[in-house]
Amino acid sequence: MSEKVITFGEIMLRLSPENNERFLQATKFEAVYGGGEANTSVSLANFGISCSYVTKLPNNPIGQKGLNSLREYGVGVENIIRGGDQIGIYFLEKKTSQRPTNVLYNRHGSAIALAKAEEFDWEKIFEGATWFHFSGITPALSDELAKATLTACKTAKKKGIKISCDLNYRSKLWSGEKAKSVMSEICKYVDICIANEDDAIGIFGIDTHDTAGEEKNAYVARVLTEMFPNFELVASVWRLETSVTTFSLQSMIYKGKKAYYSREYSMHILDYIGAGDAYCAGIIYSLINNYDIKKAVEFSNAASCLKHTVSGDFNLITAQEVNTLAFGSGGNEVQR
Amino acid sequence: MSEKVITFGEIMLRLSPENNERFLQATKFEAVYGGGEANTSVSLANFGISCSYVTKLPNNPIGQKGLNSLREYGVGVENIIRGGDQIGIYFLEKKTSQRPTNVLYNRHGSAIALAKAEEFDWEKIFEGATWFHFSGITPALSDELAKATLTACKTAKKKGIKISCDLNYRSKLWSGEKAKSVMSEICKYVDICIANEDDAIGIFGIDTHDTAGEEKNAYVARVLTEMFPNFELVASVWRLETSVTTFSLQSMIYKGKKAYYSREYSMHILDYIGAGDAYCAGIIYSLINNYDIKKAVEFSNAASCLKHTVSGDFNLITAQEVNTLAFGSGGNEVQR
Amino acid sequence: MSEKVITFGEIMLRLSPENNERFLQATKFEAVYGGGEANTSVSLANFGISCSYVTKLPNNPIGQKGLNSLREYGVGVENIIRGGDQIGIYFLEKKTSQRPTNVLYNRHGSAIALAKAEEFDWEKIFEGATWFHFSGITPALSDELAKATLTACKTAKKKGIKISCDLNYRSKLWSGEKAKSVMSEICKYVDICIANEDDAIGIFGIDTHDTAGEEKNAYVARVLTEMFPNFELVASVWRLETSVTTFSLQSMIYKGKKAYYSREYSMHILDYIGAGDAYCAGIIYSLINNYDIKKAVEFSNAASCLKHTVSGDFNLITAQEVNTLAFGSGGNEVQR
Amino acid sequence: MSEKVITFGEIMLRLSPENNERFLQATKFEAVYGGGEANTSVSLANFGISCSYVTKLPNNPIGQKGLNSLREYGVGVENIIRGGDQIGIYFLEKKTSQRPTNVLYNRHGSAIALAKAEEFDWEKIFEGATWFHFSGITPALSDELAKATLTACKTAKKKGIKISCDLNYRSKLWSGEKAKSVMSEICKYVDICIANEDDAIGIFGIDTHDTAGEEKNAYVARVLTEMFPNFELVASVWRLETSVTTFSLQSMIYKGKKAYYSREYSMHILDYIGAGDAYCAGIIYSLINNYDIKKAVEFSNAASCLKHTVSGDFNLITAQEVNTLAFGSGGNEVQR
Amino acid sequence: MSEKVITFGEIMLRLSPENNERFLQATKFEAVYGGGEANTSVSLANFGISCSYVTKLPNNPIGQKGLNSLREYGVGVENIIRGGDQIGIYFLEKKTSQRPTNVLYNRHGSAIALAKAEEFDWEKIFEGATWFHFSGITPALSDELAKATLTACKTAKKKGIKISCDLNYRSKLWSGEKAKSVMSEICKYVDICIANEDDAIGIFGIDTHDTAGEEKNAYVARVLTEMFPNFELVASVWRLETSVTTFSLQSMIYKGKKAYYSREYSMHILDYIGAGDAYCAGIIYSLINNYDIKKAVEFSNAASCLKHTVSGDFNLITAQEVNTLAFGSGGNEVQR
Amino acid sequence: MSEKVITFGEIMLRLSPENNERFLQATKFEAVYGGGEANTSVSLANFGISCSYVTKLPNNPIGQKGLNSLREYGVGVENIIRGGDQIGIYFLEKKTSQRPTNVLYNRHGSAIALAKAEEFDWEKIFEGATWFHFSGITPALSDELAKATLTACKTAKKKGIKISCDLNYRSKLWSGEKAKSVMSEICKYVDICIANEDDAIGIFGIDTHDTAGEEKNAYVARVLTEMFPNFELVASVWRLETSVTTFSLQSMIYKGKKAYYSREYSMHILDYIGAGDAYCAGIIYSLINNYDIKKAVEFSNAASCLKHTVSGDFNLITAQEVNTLAFGSGGNEVQR
Repeated sequence: MSEKVITFGEIMLRLSPENNERFLQATKFEAVYGGGEANTSVSLANFGISCSYVTKLPNNPIGQKGLNSLREYGVGVENIIRGGDQIGIYFLEKKTSQRPTNVLYNRHGSAIALAKAEEFDWEKIFEGATWFHFSGITPALSDELAKATLTACKTAKKKGIKISCDLNYRSKLWSGEKAKSVMSEICKYVDICIANEDDAIGIFGIDTHDTAGEEKNAYVARVLTEMFPNFELVASVWRLETSVTTFSLQSMIYKGKKAYYSREYSMHILDYIGAGDAYCAGIIYSLINNYDIKKAVEFSNAASCLKHTVSGDFNLITAQEVNTLAFGSGGNEVQR
Repeated sequence: MSEKVITFGEIMLRLSPENNERFLQATKFEAVYGGGEANTSVSLANFGISCSYVTKLPNNPIGQKGLNSLREYGVGVENIIRGGDQIGIYFLEKKTSQRPTNVLYNRHGSAIALAKAEEFDWEKIFEGATWFHFSGITPALSDELAKATLTACKTAKKKGIKISCDLNYRSKLWSGEKAKSVMSEICKYVDICIANEDDAIGIFGIDTHDTAGEEKNAYVARVLTEMFPNFELVASVWRLETSVTTFSLQSMIYKGKKAYYSREYSMHILDYIGAGDAYCAGIIYSLINNYDIKKAVEFSNAASCLKHTVSGDFNLITAQEVNTLAFGSGGNEVQR
Repeated sequence: MSEKVITFGEIMLRLSPENNERFLQATKFEAVYGGGEANTSVSLANFGISCSYVTKLPNNPIGQKGLNSLREYGVGVENIIRGGDQIGIYFLEKKTSQRPTNVLYNRHGSAIALAKAEEFDWEKIFEGATWFHFSGITPALSDELAKATLTACKTAKKKGIKISCDLNYRSKLWSGEKAKSVMSEICKYVDICIANEDDAIGIFGIDTHDTAGEEKNAYVARVLTEMFPNFELVASVWRLETSVTTFSLQSMIYKGKKAYYSREYSMHILDYIGAGDAYCAGIIYSLINNYDIKKAVEFSNAASCLKHTVSGDFNLITAQEVNTLAFGSGGNEVQR
Repeated sequence: MSEKVITFGEIMLRLSPENNERFLQATKFEAVYGGGEANTSVSLANFGISCSYVTKLPNNPIGQKGLNSLREYGVGVENIIRGGDQIGIYFLEKKTSQRPTNVLYNRHGSAIALAKAEEFDWEKIFEGATWFHFSGITPALSDELAKATLTACKTAKKKGIKISCDLNYRSKLWSGEKAKSVMSEICKYVDICIANEDDAIGIFGIDTHDTAGEEKNAYVARVLTEMFPNFELVASVWRLETSVTTFSLQSMIYKGKKAYYSREYSMHILDYIGAGDAYCAGIIYSLINNYDIKKAVEFSNAASCLKHTVSGDFNLITAQEVNTLAFGSGGNEVQR
Repeated sequence: MSEKVITFGEIMLRLSPENNERFLQATKFEAVYGGGEANTSVSLANFGISCSYVTKLPNNPIGQKGLNSLREYGVGVENIIRGGDQIGIYFLEKKTSQRPTNVLYNRHGSAIALAKAEEFDWEKIFEGATWFHFSGITPALSDELAKATLTACKTAKKKGIKISCDLNYRSKLWSGEKAKSVMSEICKYVDICIANEDDAIGIFGIDTHDTAGEEKNAYVARVLTEMFPNFELVASVWRLETSVTTFSLQSMIYKGKKAYYSREYSMHILDYIGAGDAYCAGIIYSLINNYDIKKAVEFSNAASCLKHTVSGDFNLITAQEVNTLAFGSGGNEVQR
Repeated sequence: MSEKVITFGEIMLRLSPENNERFLQATKFEAVYGGGEANTSVSLANFGISCSYVTKLPNNPIGQKGLNSLREYGVGVENIIRGGDQIGIYFLEKKTSQRPTNVLYNRHGSAIALAKAEEFDWEKIFEGATWFHFSGITPALSDELAKATLTACKTAKKKGIKISCDLNYRSKLWSGEKAKSVMSEICKYVDICIANEDDAIGIFGIDTHDTAGEEKNAYVARVLTEMFPNFELVASVWRLETSVTTFSLQSMIYKGKKAYYSREYSMHILDYIGAGDAYCAGIIYSLINNYDIKKAVEFSNAASCLKHTVSGDFNLITAQEVNTLAFGSGGNEVQR
């Protein structure tokens, strides 16, 4: 397969206390690297897809470790700019029964947040590329990155590169008004949109209180498709807390005015982060491999489900493992 | 708020194997400090209440670490007597599915167990205080501590200080007869009584087999109130194993011959210890803040619920977090 | 009690990543020692039964640590041959929600796999012994070990020693044809057979698709007893995934053409390995202590249930703990 | 003793890989809190001196943990302003034989770096205070902090509070020109100056190439005293690498145109950070306790020496331990 | 070899912070088991000598773990009495450069400290035994244990069993007067005495200030032999701090009025505890194997030297490893 | 630079107990990947040289982790064959004072040891390559690998690729006779030979007892050059234990009948493994960069020195760090 996926975004150092400790108890932090788009890129590489990541990292050993963590899983790092002083950091306190997940950011002053749009030479970056993926977090980081994202989209479109975007609204990074203004322009270039209800409300103010009987995700997808007729398909995944120990997971792809739903998984969650990013990778993998929509929604949903079993941001799951869950016998006992 | 809570009891070193290991496997112990009354004191301090702890700790670095662990969370340590040779220790093997919790004590010879009643200068300790709290464990530790507790109660009463007591029956520390004899005298000074069915049976031999249709906790509270008309209210919290992975938690406050029940939480438990102590802190906080009884029982129940999500003896939860669970929207997904 | 149980098999080094990590994430491995027959032997020793283990371990510190791990729990090691270069190793990636357990073997070239039949002096080994136990894994390791197992059985039979065998089919070690050929001969000497449906299908090709209404385990036990009339009883234990967080466990003993079933436990599993081996120890312990069949099946089932709460291969549970679960009040709250 | 020391500066989260690992290898970070002035404050508290720390920390759990880490050792936290988004972070890779220490800062955007001068109400902060300490790092963090430091000095001087300053030049934070300009003004208010050769060169450009035979530290102290006749004394400590496993440590106090030298220690170093801060605490403690200069220089040098044996930034050493090393028999074998 | 060594003493739980941390920093403790006589017993078992340990341990899992830790290394546990409530505990803070080792005891109330002399049936214990070893710590624990030790010595003497005693003076356990009174009686039965200068001063008040030119250890041994003509030999080992990173180790055996000295080792120390106990094991092993005195002193010294390289109380070193150091080529580079 | 280095050899899983524990104590193993040639390849990649590694790894997650560990540092993995069942493992017990390093192999049955010569397509592997490196370990693993190595050399020679070989004699893998026979043929193709005295003795039986006054390494290099006139240069590095805490390190390059010596470093060693491999990388880097011989020997020696400060097999050191040590000011204090 000669596909090559370019992904654009931040990669942060993630610090979390060991063993469900609170921040107040932590004398050690588990250190991994991650971030929405990076997670999607690593997941694709683990599926065997050729990938290259575009970001900026400080030229010091902590930045190098971030780069190495991508390289370890086979993601191309030739498009990573080195410079700036700091890496973005996020602190993660894990959800435990009634105690919710707590995420704190140390993102001000990071290399990528301070990067200039012109540092990214999209003509060169897209050489040999066939797919471009990013999320709504990237343009939210700064005006310069919003500009860079738009330039990237225009360049990709010009070169006939497929473009996917996970809307990924982050209210801590920008207001809904700002988001709508920026994303409305960017979305005109997007072919594949991944979006859930919160993104649609947050960015485009889509009102989901009364969908006139239409299933909510299908409603959102339909409205988005009407707003952006260029969207070939809209994909969505949602997680619901079904008990104090279990969550359910289900997905939908909306295409050709029709909604296709996956089966629903009941999950016990090891790690809450990166499930949406893994879903994006499932969608991209499915489309690159020309899976039909029903197969695509099952594959992507199973990919996202398995991410919940892997600690850290990255989805360290092979395509074969996803296929076994989605389509195999699913025998779960010890094999020996 | 010019409230100041004095709490009296032991603080022990708690040693537990890592990761649900058995004692037979342990090559390391997780070391935290705790004990019924100390736990209540720390919880109150985390709620923002001014607190001071009364105990005795050896004047060596292990005793100092115990003191520091209180100071870390803002508990006043100016009333801690230093002396003796040993700290009390308890070993904790965590419950795992059908395998029950196992607690082993190394308490003989501890500084507090060997302390004399006259070492505690209650007149001085209670300067500026508005509340006195202890549990049935304190007088159970020795005759001297029983005497000290009684003296403390009398002094507090004289000074118009509110007195709360968690009955906390420990059959490993004293017999029911001894407990009844000592606690009958002490309870005459108590305003707020925290008690569950086991305490009532163990200490006062209250027969709960036939309550003539009355809900058991209400029955116990009513009988206690009849025994000790000085009890302004009796509060109780109970935990039931609802499946191999879940417990339910519910509370009651009995006041003015009426029982008020909280909602019930379904919990997955990270740490089984200190939930009753956290409940006491909830009750004291609620009363200090003049919460009405319905709000008080919900706040206290939520405080106890959240303790189950924190490892160690101490309830490292803020009042705001309790309020969010008890009265807020309770959104449990990642906030970012 | 003057019973003495000889057990014959491998003991491996088990390496598993910490905290549900994947192999791809592991920078440390938890190292314990285990293996089917060794696990049964340790469990019996923890029940207070005199045991001696027969195996071969390299005469280096890693082999010594394997030996010490048996000695630690009181298993006799005087029949362990020292020699060869390598210990067998298995890597274990723990099941996490939808992600299944993954076991990888590094067994080629291990001391026991390369041992010769004549290295085992069964006359001497069986001095003072009253019981001989092994599983189908031992003869599967090599032709020499198959030969050694058969010789052991013949010698034991001659000496009037009771023989138990856990069929334990391992498709990664031998084919069904090979297994059937070897085990058919060995089973002629076996008094107590532990077998589940998969073993019966794998080794003897017993068809369980249509049991004409007979419960499957009873059906399998009946067919096995018809094949080997020397089987005094056939015992079986089975585990079913009942939800994403729970499994059920139940057992059966078939004796005198009648099936006796235990109660069923709902379990949350800490460690999936060694539950069948713990069950074997329960059966042997029960028979040595002349438990009646109903008591035996409950004891053995409870032993297996409790193994699921102990990390590592070994069942570090006392007979008293099993009895409390099987026949006691079963109070599961903290005792203090 | 009714002395009370106010200290002003940053407190950072320090993250270092375990066990002399490189940043490229770290999957965990040891997390402690520290920073020049905070370290001095904690050391003084461990000596039994009443202290209060002035800084700004974000009002989130990571900021709270920083505050708690001071409170744990008895430092007053009533003057800590809460606000801002981020805590300053520094990454520490420990020196190992020929491989030097590597320190990386994530300080841009921290609460203290963005604080305004007017946030600090020095009149109120200095109520009851008798001593004010800071280092050259504080004014280097921002123009606002330089302004705040100057205001603090003026206020302290007005109130008759003793002022000590560790020059502590940090070339990564400001240029020599900037430093000279700011510090020249501030130093006019300083009574006790702690400075080493690098500080003198970096900030005041003092040329130490030719001291005409005068010992370098004495030369520096003399020149500084001539520049700032208000300096009552100048103290200095220096560490020299004497072999690949050992360093020597020696100190000097220059007072009344005379240099007093301590003995020299040969040390094996557990932690390289905070030795100068511990020295400052030694000087302040000595002066508060009216030690004569010879005793003061020995005490301070021993305090600094012992800091090298404690991991983390904080000097967790009692005054008694310092006295034993400086003046006691110094028996170093196990006491039991 | 049909030798069998009986050893009598305590075994404690040893708790030490990880990685040279101070007690004030410890959130985990490394947990091992040890104690003077137990250490000697394990070392002998690792040398291949048949051993059995006499002590009392509580009949709970912590006591069981202590017992298992002996059994793991092949020490016989059939003479261990089970009972009492607590195990003795000691806390260990490791020496780091100028910061000395700190040992804190939690020994009051331990099973062995409260044991009665008559619980030990020496006639039965000594069946088949050829050697009896104990140290001065055992009789120091209580009057009952002093009585038990004396009875043991008398019984052993009667049965023609060789008796060795390590004087091991512990000033925290008893006064010099008490020690002298008790040990004077016990020493009449001792054949082999291990003693260093501190023991001789502490117990027997031997004045070593002026030895008239005689080497101190020889002087002490000569005086002891004059006091107790029954001493066949007196052995001694001493450790000197030669630099901040190194210690020297040397030994002497005094026999027939002549002192034999070993070579001197320069050591870097991983663990300071148990070196004297390892030396005792070296002496006993040497004498059992009829080593001549020169070989014995070298073997014992090398055994003690190697103990310094093993963390924990136990000397996990084989006789072959000791021989290689003492008499082999001593090649210290990697063998592969 | 368009250089590309192909390296051929094994990569093993290295398991070592934590914190200088003995194998008998290990309940965890630190897991890294390494092996002579792999180590050289990673070191070159860290220096910025384009590299590709040739080996065979099982197609399972443990094999994948080995591959990922190379990819993490930028080594090309496109020439790694996937297949076989097992990875080679080595257990490492770290040297501690007088206790020597202990290495145990679990190499029988590994994928690379069972690989066939024809699996390696050297024509394809060498496309674009300019340098070929291997060590004497590779042909020692099996006859097939000896054959493969010879074929590789012939192919490389034909293509004008520079060939370097580290003789690296391993007596546990083959006899001196076998080694001499195989290496004599292979060495005819080698341009750059890295060899120390032990290699020369072990493989070629060079007698170094009497070198007639010639420095030993120069003597060995001269004799080797006379045996193999094709050797352009012979390089050697040696480590001597200078005290119980320090080693010295020095190197030599012999070229044009002249020996060039580096300076000597005194080192404290964190990790003993891989120093020779790091030296090879230094030599290759120096020659690729056309360093003169004096600079080359200093650079290579410094590279090897710094490897001793990095735990694990891999030399995680940049060329800049080597240059700073070899040629820079070498300031070793904290930079901040």
